[in-house]
Order: sequence, then structure tokens, then C-alpha cells
Amino acid sequence: MSGESVIGSLDLTTLGAAYASGAATVGGMVETVLDRIEGAGDDHVWIARVEAADLRRRAGELDALDRAEAAKLPLFGIPFAVKDNIDVAGMPTTAACPDFAYVPQVSATLVDRLLNAGAVLVGKTNLDQFATGLVGVRSPYGVPRNPFDARYIPGGSSSGSAVAVSAGLVGFSLGTDTAGSGRVPASFNNIVGLKPTRGALSTKGVVPACRSLDCVSIFALTSADAAAVFDVAAGFDAADPYSRTTHDAALPEGFRFGVPRAADLHFFGDEAAAELYGIAVERLTALGGTPVTIDFTPFRETAELLYSGPWVAERMAAVESFLRESPESLHPITRRIITGADAYSAVDTFRAMYRLEELRRIAGAVWDDIDVLLVPTAGTIYTVDQLEADPVALNTNLGEYTNFTNLLDLSAIAVPNGFGPLGLPLGVTLIAPAFHDRALADLGRRWQAATGLTLGATGAALPDAKPLVGATSGRTVLAMVGGHMEGMALSPELVALGGRKVAAVRTEPLYRLYALPGMNPARPGLLRVADGGGHAIGAELWSIPDGRLAAFMATIKGPLGIGTVMVEGWGPVKGFLCEAYATVGAEEISGFGGWRAYVAARAG
Amino acid sequence: MSGESVIGSLDLTTLGAAYASGAATVGGMVETVLDRIEGAGDDHVWIARVEAADLRRRAGELDALDRAEAAKLPLFGIPFAVKDNIDVAGMPTTAACPDFAYVPQVSATLVDRLLNAGAVLVGKTNLDQFATGLVGVRSPYGVPRNPFDARYIPGGSSSGSAVAVSAGLVGFSLGTDTAGSGRVPASFNNIVGLKPTRGALSTKGVVPACRSLDCVSIFALTSADAAAVFDVAAGFDAADPYSRTTHDAALPEGFRFGVPRAADLHFFGDEAAAELYGIAVERLTALGGTPVTIDFTPFRETAELLYSGPWVAERMAAVESFLRESPESLHPITRRIITGADAYSAVDTFRAMYRLEELRRIAGAVWDDIDVLLVPTAGTIYTVDQLEADPVALNTNLGEYTNFTNLLDLSAIAVPNGFGPLGLPLGVTLIAPAFHDRALADLGRRWQAATGLTLGATGAALPDAKPLVGATSGRTVLAMVGGHMEGMALSPELVALGGRKVAAVRTEPLYRLYALPGMNPARPGLLRVADGGGHAIGAELWSIPDGRLAAFMATIKGPLGIGTVMVEGWGPVKGFLCEAYATVGAEEISGFGGWRAYVAARAG
Repeated sequence: MSGESVIGSLDLTTLGAAYASGAATVGGMVETVLDRIEGAGDDHVWIARVEAADLRRRAGELDALDRAEAAKLPLFGIPFAVKDNIDVAGMPTTAACPDFAYVPQVSATLVDRLLNAGAVLVGKTNLDQFATGLVGVRSPYGVPRNPFDARYIPGGSSSGSAVAVSAGLVGFSLGTDTAGSGRVPASFNNIVGLKPTRGALSTKGVVPACRSLDCVSIFALTSADAAAVFDVAAGFDAADPYSRTTHDAALPEGFRFGVPRAADLHFFGDEAAAELYGIAVERLTALGGTPVTIDFTPFRETAELLYSGPWVAERMAAVESFLRESPESLHPITRRIITGADAYSAVDTFRAMYRLEELRRIAGAVWDDIDVLLVPTAGTIYTVDQLEADPVALNTNLGEYTNFTNLLDLSAIAVPNGFGPLGLPLGVTLIAPAFHDRALADLGRRWQAATGLTLGATGAALPDAKPLVGATSGRTVLAMVGGHMEGMALSPELVALGGRKVAAVRTEPLYRLYALPGMNPARPGLLRVADGGGHAIGAELWSIPDGRLAAFMATIKGPLGIGTVMVEGWGPVKGFLCEAYATVGAEEISGFGGWRAYVAARAG
Repeated sequence: MSGESVIGSLDLTTLGAAYASGAATVGGMVETVLDRIEGAGDDHVWIARVEAADLRRRAGELDALDRAEAAKLPLFGIPFAVKDNIDVAGMPTTAACPDFAYVPQVSATLVDRLLNAGAVLVGKTNLDQFATGLVGVRSPYGVPRNPFDARYIPGGSSSGSAVAVSAGLVGFSLGTDTAGSGRVPASFNNIVGLKPTRGALSTKGVVPACRSLDCVSIFALTSADAAAVFDVAAGFDAADPYSRTTHDAALPEGFRFGVPRAADLHFFGDEAAAELYGIAVERLTALGGTPVTIDFTPFRETAELLYSGPWVAERMAAVESFLRESPESLHPITRRIITGADAYSAVDTFRAMYRLEELRRIAGAVWDDIDVLLVPTAGTIYTVDQLEADPVALNTNLGEYTNFTNLLDLSAIAVPNGFGPLGLPLGVTLIAPAFHDRALADLGRRWQAATGLTLGATGAALPDAKPLVGATSGRTVLAMVGGHMEGMALSPELVALGGRKVAAVRTEPLYRLYALPGMNPARPGLLRVADGGGHAIGAELWSIPDGRLAAFMATIKGPLGIGTVMVEGWGPVKGFLCEAYATVGAEEISGFGGWRAYVAARAG
């Protein structure tokens, strides 16, 4: 069958719904993708593709699964592409350097995870050689065609992976991101680029750029899709020494976001880009954020450290024997950059690391004031001709807002922000400390809905997507009914443990409140009653970081404890309860409606 | 007044008790210390001392405090010494290199903390120049005299600080420990050397050796003293980029301890040392530990990496301009070692860091099997003459069991273990992952009591000391009364969250147990009753990591919750309770004595 009639956008929601309804088959998807790739012609996106026969065989296997088996595969039938510095068993890995190519026996851990989740690999994509560059023009395989205007660069180094998603050839793709290679091309292709926390995604089977900094990144049409792929891809890998056990850190409601001072914002003469960034600040404010002007200096100095410091020696470490033996095999710009490593000694390296520690400390103080950092993904875009005339300096300009991220151990998501007067997209990046990957993706989901933009270069509308961050948000919500409420005696203890007020609420009318005798400070006890004699009691919901819950629990003495409180409009929430035995003989104060009213009445 | 008549051991317990009882004054202590220093003669311990008049002035200030003010100072009147690579305002810092000396305007953060806690600084101590060495013989200020036998080395690099404590000249001292400088001299002086977690103690105002690895260490006569000093000294310092926010990680009851395979244990022909280590294994077993034979290879390879790899460039980075300008100012061995840095490039450095990450991963797997690692502090001891004949190789031998510790981010405490046939002490070291500083000190406290050894070279008996690690143990103990108990339906959930069974117990006879209707799996509910109709109910205490408590709490649904359960012999413990409303109409099963018996009876 031909699927073109029923296959539209390849985003996970739309394609998944088409599979679920029976309107599409994986076989139909494969024919569509093959047609689109053929239609795209000589776009320089691919270095190698899976053969059509193999794609059809894979589709047949997936289509043969029954509905229950298919439902177990979170990426069932989703076509994807892999940057050609990531191993796929049996296909050459070139890193865009033909003489370097080898054929791995096993796939990168990450690729296996995606395949095991039902995704369909379409091919391997073009890149700036050895993932060195942010431009997309440093490859012997040509310049991947920017789908908005072929005169402009696609961004790099993950150029082919970004274009493949934007042009609707695949549903998602893998890039890598050491200095910004997973974000800059997202900006120039009107798509999402999730740069996960260092170590969240295994780099086993990835050609290193700077091994201590490398991240595999995810390109997708929507933030929700990027999160769905992240959920499959992330996980500790004992075979990767840089792999980390991750957890979900959450962003607070009413988040504060950093905006660099005007003097720190460089758009390289691109007034439209400056205007678009201003719109982004307004949009994030409208989404509930509070803008905070910050000193961008430590971020900029860290970015400069990456490009002017000894980390280039990591690139040399990755390819040294190859480069020494056949230097002429490298792209001349790439070779010039990598051989720059020879200028750095061990002493230089340690000194740069000391400076980095200092900058981490200084930047850390900025994070005390903000929850998210909002920056342009890149300050402007250039034409291919401009880049060829000035290949290094313009590349450096493009990294101004990205280079610091991995050195400072941050997570980031590049999202579409709008189009300039020439019809070229420019995005912004939301950045947060490590382990905020899913929280950023959820903010990106809300962001994308607010932009009203269509997906990539496909013209498809953004599908609805559910909120992402729920129970595993890294914070526990507790219902407070006594002295921990805002402004009361124990509230400072709670704040000291990172507590934040979420909402003023009432319980369901199932409880009685007692003034417990003999406690200092005075404490109330909330007791659920079996009969119909319950009251709705005033309460406050507070969240505290999961990591501090044990410390908070340690402060709670009997007869008080933490059980489940039924809260009006919220349902069951963990919160303070009192053991029944201790309410025998205690004064019932339910009639006051809550502890705050009781305390006020007593004081009055 | 002269204090010699009333001042005995300078350990914190004995001296503190003498102050508290009024039997001693700080003025008396100062006279005693001055007498003892004069009596020690030309011991090469000191590079500079606080003048007697200044000591007497400081004593006068402290003695003038009233009892309440004095009680607020945790180190009131305790004399201490500081290794001469740590700044004290107004005194020269030499790092045992006279030409390098400078007079700092401000003291190291750490020194100020100790002084503010009431400690009395006596002087600055000799060291292996630039803290490079484990021997104590690489100083133009002579070889600090080993108080057990002057022919033998005192150990280094913190040689003077260790001898000062062992000889009873001060109550505690500061050393530094990059490769083992805070542990090897403890071994050779029969004292305790606490090598805290990297970053737990500020290194602001310390001459760097390897700045990314340096720790300030604590020498004391007892483990309890080391912990008391640690409690004052530890704390985040924004001025030190390597400072870390710490927390207390605990060791479990029934800890497992690693013992290297026989083939991995090297004593360099010293049979007495081998025998002493065997005794240590037996002693730690008697203290409740279970020995686990481990593969020491990743630790040994990490140790070799420190000495044969690029980290020596950190030493060069610390003193480069001084060394280039006046190389003849350095001790010839020290100069030879530090100029070795010139052989390493940036590429070498990154490659060594990659190898270190791999070794961390491999060593991490060992830590899955053990809680503590027990090693000889040093495999043997040498004479000063032996060291002078073979200065580098023998030094390397001494670091076999210490060099890996900071590279692998471990905490450690060196403790006395016994004496060989020549009357020389040899210690062992207890090692654990980062943040176990207090837990190790508490194990060291129990260890020291078990050895029956007197303190340092003073002949004083070990005073009693209270347990250290209490509520902030890093694990929360919970009383389980239902399906989470060992072998029951929900137990695997608990184990998956890191739960460990602590003990089988019974509650106080204050409770009723109910079989709750409508729960799957079946669950009991424990309810405390106000009248005398309570029962003792069978329960199990389990501990779970504080960091996992929130995840565990999230699995608990109403009417169950976590309150306070009174446990026979344990007192109040957090544990499962049931809301009273849900027991109305439920079957009371208190008569079975516990859920396990009830379930067995139902099945039978």
C-alpha cells in the first residue's frame, strides 16, 4: 500500500494516532518517507541510508504485531535518523571524514534503546566533520539544505539530523551537542533541540568530540516528542564512564527566568533577532515566569574558556593517531582547529579547570536568583557564502549563547521562537541546572503552544500534548494544617528546608480539628472521622524537595504524622494527621474552620 | 600559675573536663605546653611558634570568660598546631621552602573557624616541602623526631603536625592530604588522621599541592576528637571554588568491609605489619562487620595514576613562577618531582582523566559489595637512613594504600592498630565513599576502644566518648507492621528503594492491629489506643536512604500513613499507622500478635 494518502506530520502524536486508529501502517509510513526523501533530491542530508528493502522488512515486522504488543512500544513505527558520529551496527560511521570511516559491530547503546522501543531507523546524517563547528558547512558530503532558504546555513554540527526533522523526512533524530551542536541547528530549522544533562544519555558508541562534555541530543518537531524520546533514551549505562544516574528536578510554579543585561546581548547587527528575543521575554512572562536581569559575564567567560582553552585537546585525544598519520584526510578548518591542541600543556589544562571551578561558583550564585535562563539560541544566522569567507569568527559568534552549557553542567532545550523578515526562523533556548530535562521539555511544550508556529518546515499544526511533569517532579506536596502555614511559628523551618507554598486550600468535609494539649509551640491535630460529622478545614499545600523530606519528617513527633488528606479540588494529598488516641479529651476547634482562625481568635 | 600539676592528656575530653571542673585553666595549659615544647628540645616539629606572651594573652582572654560564654566555645582552650602550608595572619607561610615564604594578611578560613571556637594556636609545623612526599624527611627544617624511635621517619608530608599531637604538645592539629599526607604520619605516630571528603573543609588560604584533590586533614589523639574538630571546621566556603555542601552519610549496622585479596596486599617484607593487618580484620569483624574479599586492582591502578600521571602538573601550576625563577630554592627531590610536570601535554591530561573515570566506574562496582574498605595505612615503615638512600621508590611504597582516595572521592580515617616488635606503631585506614566523615569517625571511636591502646606517645588512656552518629545518619528507620516485612508481598518494593532490615521488634503494648477491608494486597492497620487495651504487635525496623523516602512515601495510600510508633527497647520510631476512621468495622487481629502470624494462620 502507499501511505502518502494517510501519512501527514511525522510528529509522535499525529503519527501515533494514525497507527492507533488503523488509518496508517508502518509500511505506509516507510513508503511515504522514501517518497519524501526522493522528492527532496540532492539535499546533502544523508551520509548513508538504510536500504529500502530493509526498511520494508522492518515495517512488516512491526505491522505484524498485534495491538497489545504494539502498544508496549513507546516509539512504535516512528522513523528516525542518527547523526553519523553515532554507531549503527553494520553501517559505516564516518563522522563526515570518509578516510576515518569504520563499520561497527554493535550499535550505540542509545540506538538499541530506540530500536527496541519500536522506532524505525531511516539513515545516518551529515555533520560538521568530527562534530567540530556550529555551522553545517564543514563536511565533504556537502551543505545540508536549509529548508527555509538554501542560501543560508542549516546550523551545525548536527546539520543533517536537524534538516531531516524540519523537512518532514523523519519524526525525530539524534544529534550530539558539545558546544551547541544540538541547539544551533534547531534554531535555524524551526524545530526543538533537547540538550540533555551530561551523562543522562549514554555516549557509548559515539565518536568523541570532547569526551568529558559530549552529550547526545534529540531533535523533534515538538517538545513533547523530545521528552518522549528522552524517556526511552535516558538511562544509566555502566559501559559509559560518563553515564550518570539521573532524577527529575522540577521547576517551581511562578518560576523566575534570567535575562542577560542589554549590554550582554549581542545580535551581530541583526535587529530582527533582537526584536524576536524581546518577544520571547514577553512570552515567557505570559507563561507565568518573572524576568530577572542577570549579569551574563560568568556564562560568557565560560563560553570563551571552551573555545580558547585546552578542551580542544579532547578533540585531539579522540582522533590523534588518525590525524597524525593522514592529516590531509581532514577538512582544512577542522584540522587547523584540532591541531591547536598542541599548544596546551598539562599545567595549562589544570589552570583552565581551576578557572572553570571559579566560574561555576560565580554562575552558581546567578542560579540562586533564577530558575531558568532564557537566551537566544544564536544571535543571528549567516549565509553559506558568509561562512566560507570567514569560517572561524562567524562560527564563534554562533556559540555565544551555547558554549557554556556543558562546562557548567546545565540542561537546555532550544525551541522555535519566530521568523525574521527574510522568512528565516530563529529560536531561543531555555536553560536550567542539571536534571531539569523533563521540566524544561514541559515548559517547552507550553512555550510551543503559545507561539502558534507550525512544525519545522512542514506546515503542520502543533498537536495537543499533555503536561509532562507530574508525580516524579522531585518535590513532594504536603497539606499543612497548623504551625507550618505561611507566617506561623514553624513556617521558617519549612522554608529553610526548601519548602514553597503551592496554594491555600480546604480539606473535604471529612475531618475534625483539635487543639492538642501540652505541645510547644501549640499544635492542632487533624482527624478524619467515620461518620458524617466532618468539617472542611483550612489548609495550605506546600511542596518540599524530595531530598529534604526525610529531614522534615525527622522534625515530626507523635501524635502527629504524615498520612493522606483529602483536599477539595485536589483529591488525596500527603499531609499532617493526628493519631486518634491523642484527641481524647482535647478541645475540638473544627468550628473555627482552621488553625489560623483559631489562633487569631485566641490572640484577639 | 603553673598547670603541670593538673594538666594531663590534651585530648578534648580530658582537657575539657579539667576546664569544666575548674581543675585547670587555659593559662595553666599554656604553661604546660610551653614546658613540654621546651622539654622536647630540638625535635624539628615547628617552623614557627606563637610567642609565649601572645599565648598568655590569649589564655587570659579565654580564662576571663564566664562559664556560659566558655560553654559556647566547642574547642575552648584546646591547643592546636597548623601545618605550615596553611595561612595564619601575621605568621610566615613557608611550605617548608624558606625562599617561598610570605606573610599573609588573613588566616585560612579554617583557622579562623577553629580560633572562633576557642582553640589556642601554638604554632606552625614542619612538612615535606610543598606537601610533596609521604616521608617527613624532605624539609630544610630537619626531620621531625618520631617520638617512638628517632631513627625512624615520622611520615609525611604533615610530619610536624602528627608528631606534635603524638608527643602531647597540642590537642589536635591540621595537616593536608592530597595523596596520603594526613594518614601515613598518623600511622607512624599512633594517632588518628581524619582525611575528610574533598571540599568538606575549606582550602582557602592553603598553599595548593594538587588543587583539585587537596584536603585539609585533622590529627587527633582520638577519633571522637577528630570528629569534634571536624564539626567545627567543616562547612561550605564560597571563597573556595572546590568547597562542597556536605551531608552525613551513614554506615549501616551490620556493615560489610572490603579486604584486599592476599595477592593485592604488599607489606614490603614486613611480616609484623602483615600480622597486624590480620588482627585488624579480626577486630573489625568483632565490631559487627562482615569481611568481604575484594579485587583491589582498580584502587591500585588509580593510585598509580596519581603518581605516574599528569596530576604532578597541578604541583607545577601551584609554584611555577617561583620554581622557574629560583629552582635552586627547592629541595632537590621536590624539584625533580615537580619538574616532571613538563613531560605532560593537555592531551595526556584528558586521557588520564578518561582513565580515571573508567577506574571510578570499576571501583564503584566494588562499593556495591562493601560499605567500608579496610587497608593498612602504610605497608611498612622505614628508617630515615633508608629513605635518604632511596628517596623516591620507598616514598611510593608508602602511598600504596592512600594515593587513590582523593581521586576516587572517598573519605577516610587512619586509626592506631598496634605496635610491631621494634616498638613502632602501625595503623590501618577505614575508607568509605564521600560524606561518610562522621560515620567513619564514629566507627573509629568504637575501633579505638577495642584496641586498648594508649594515646599517641603520651601513655594516656583513651577516655570514654559518646556515639557520634544519630538522627542525621542519612537513612530513616521505619517500623513496618505489614506487607513490607521480610519475605512478604511488598518487601521487594522496599528493597528496590534501598531498604535494609535493621531488626525484628515488638511495639510497646499500646496498639491494636486490624485487617483492613478492601485492600489488595491485604494490609493491616496499626492503631494506638488511649485506654489500657493495647497489645504489643510484632514489627520490623527497616532503614531506607533519606533520598528515597519521598519515593517510598509516594507508594503509601490512605488510610495508611507514617507516624510515630513506640517500639520496645527502641523508643519512638517512625512507622506505619492507620487512620482510626478506617478501623471502624474492620476485623481486629491483635490477638495474633502481628501480621505475619495472622497471614500464616489464614493460609494454614
